[in-house]
Amino acid sequence: MSKKTRTEELEKLAQFGKQVLEQIKKMENPHIQIPLRSLSNTIFDEDKQILKLGNKKQVRTYFNTAHTKKFMQTLLIASACKELIKSGKTTSIRDLFYMTKHTIGTSKENTFEDQEESNAIIEDLEVTIDALRENLHLFASTRGAMVGNATIVDSGDTINLRKMGSGGWGIPSIVEEEVIQFKNVEAEFVLVVEKDAMWRRLNEDKFWKKHNCLLMHGQGMAPRGVRRLLWRLNHELKLPVYVFVDNDPWGFYIYSVYKQGSINLAYESKRMAVTDAKFIGLSSFDQEKFDIPDNATIKLTKTDIARCRQILEYPWFQKKSWQKEIKHMMKKGVKLELEALSKKGLEFTANTYLPQKIENKDWLE
Amino acid sequence: MSKKTRTEELEKLAQFGKQVLEQIKKMENPHIQIPLRSLSNTIFDEDKQILKLGNKKQVRTYFNTAHTKKFMQTLLIASACKELIKSGKTTSIRDLFYMTKHTIGTSKENTFEDQEESNAIIEDLEVTIDALRENLHLFASTRGAMVGNATIVDSGDTINLRKMGSGGWGIPSIVEEEVIQFKNVEAEFVLVVEKDAMWRRLNEDKFWKKHNCLLMHGQGMAPRGVRRLLWRLNHELKLPVYVFVDNDPWGFYIYSVYKQGSINLAYESKRMAVTDAKFIGLSSFDQEKFDIPDNATIKLTKTDIARCRQILEYPWFQKKSWQKEIKHMMKKGVKLELEALSKKGLEFTANTYLPQKIENKDWLE
Repeated sequence: MSKKTRTEELEKLAQFGKQVLEQIKKMENPHIQIPLRSLSNTIFDEDKQILKLGNKKQVRTYFNTAHTKKFMQTLLIASACKELIKSGKTTSIRDLFYMTKHTIGTSKENTFEDQEESNAIIEDLEVTIDALRENLHLFASTRGAMVGNATIVDSGDTINLRKMGSGGWGIPSIVEEEVIQFKNVEAEFVLVVEKDAMWRRLNEDKFWKKHNCLLMHGQGMAPRGVRRLLWRLNHELKLPVYVFVDNDPWGFYIYSVYKQGSINLAYESKRMAVTDAKFIGLSSFDQEKFDIPDNATIKLTKTDIARCRQILEYPWFQKKSWQKEIKHMMKKGVKLELEALSKKGLEFTANTYLPQKIENKDWLE
Repeated sequence: MSKKTRTEELEKLAQFGKQVLEQIKKMENPHIQIPLRSLSNTIFDEDKQILKLGNKKQVRTYFNTAHTKKFMQTLLIASACKELIKSGKTTSIRDLFYMTKHTIGTSKENTFEDQEESNAIIEDLEVTIDALRENLHLFASTRGAMVGNATIVDSGDTINLRKMGSGGWGIPSIVEEEVIQFKNVEAEFVLVVEKDAMWRRLNEDKFWKKHNCLLMHGQGMAPRGVRRLLWRLNHELKLPVYVFVDNDPWGFYIYSVYKQGSINLAYESKRMAVTDAKFIGLSSFDQEKFDIPDNATIKLTKTDIARCRQILEYPWFQKKSWQKEIKHMMKKGVKLELEALSKKGLEFTANTYLPQKIENKDWLE
């Protein structure tokens, strides 16, 4: 954490505590206001093109048997985060659960019974004091890797992403400015691949070298670290972002999470959504365009079709181009995986498909 | 692949093909013999202390309607692997499925319908010609990362594992000698951690620097790349290996896969099992030993207990020490996660638990 961020977050936590203290001094019933993290309070901001939380709030009161425990938990987590930031250490949300779990006084009551409780409180706290959990020194499980035409600094170590072999640099959960700095970024865009297998193929073919880019994957649904790092590359370095996912409703949704944010973490979109990310494929029109044989396609399952119907309704898929894209998939009745391109030869993706898509600006937004 | 390995594998594949060709020339019914990969043909080799396949074989015959398709598939996969090795490219088993899937002649019959079919054939081929799939240029999905007191070369890039920041080097699926070379390994042992969150904590505390080791994780059940790399570090560099897993039957089994091999991939134990790996914790006796409070424990579920009973019966858990370990867990009725140690403070694992365990040789084998 930079000193500035650290001081800011500590200040927010202190304010949060002081507010409760003031209430107690005034002999009021202590209470805190927490923005509601529910689907009903999730809205699609048409201007900014991101998912965000609405204005609904819940009030959590100390003297209310239905609230007391959660009130206590909220203050407990806030206090533990303050200690973490002060000590300069980071830890996992699982660790934090154990750190704050204890039996209260001589009772048989524990502060937390399971981690779901503490996870929810962490999210409450994030949204209440408007801080990313990463800035509260908490990390989640990580996936994803990166290579490409750039040098970065990670925790003081200079890492040349051009020299990372076949394994690549593992993208950590906390990628804030004070952990990760960009040094010598020659890359002109970022290609995010849904699956690590395709990432490996493209890395083996040195796609990033030939096309001067950064090559990243998030191993399926994008983890927070990958999203936040992509956001930083896009916002701070103005690098265009291309997302390369399976041609199925799940791939489309993964793209939309990179672009507009996720329903679960709507309150974090402004710090994670890459609103100008481009969907480079696979498109439902690619089979014809690239002459991919029928036996490389897979029939849509009932679950796939139901999911197509769902995303057709999402406000952020209302653009004509997306409606056309999704409906074409449903009409064809089949989906296409990234690996299907290998039917055209192992180097087809790196040497033909991707360059052609980028050159022709053949993408969706 | 080193030239030697490449030539060897090509030779094995050629022999495999020639043998069928000879049969055809002699007007015999073409057939191949494939070692049986079933639990009934999995044995625990007490001498070598690894799981391995027995001598049972199945015969796959061309002129036998029940075998014809599989016979064709086996030859098809063998031929595709030969092409891969010749071209010097590697690819995923999913890719290979698409590459070999096609409609036969003018029929409506496909060579493969889904990937499970081709995966099984890959395993048949591995065991028949006695080659690791990595040597057939195939990779699986990857997980896991490494940092520590060593420099390695990955695909020609020199990687200083002392300077990998918080993210670490992602362990690839293929870690054979020709991809990964060890250069300047000062580390005196390898610590393998079950979970990436604990790995991150230990990396943040620079445990590997203080204790001169390599720090590796496999994100749960060990992926092939991580197992094979560990095997190489142990066999080629004679580094002792300590495995650090949750105190539950699943953690115990993860340890046993590193040590003796897995039931699923018994035929690969000789190239992956680290027979002198040591289980450093968490042990069922650690709660008392390290004074871990009761509320950091979790009650065993029915599934946990059933799994305990199962592993109690496995031949490779028959040592007295292991029987005692498992039975003590069942008697206590609780399990302990790695993160439970954080109740004793964030640095307890790095500064107290692990050093004490290693110094006192307080481990199981």
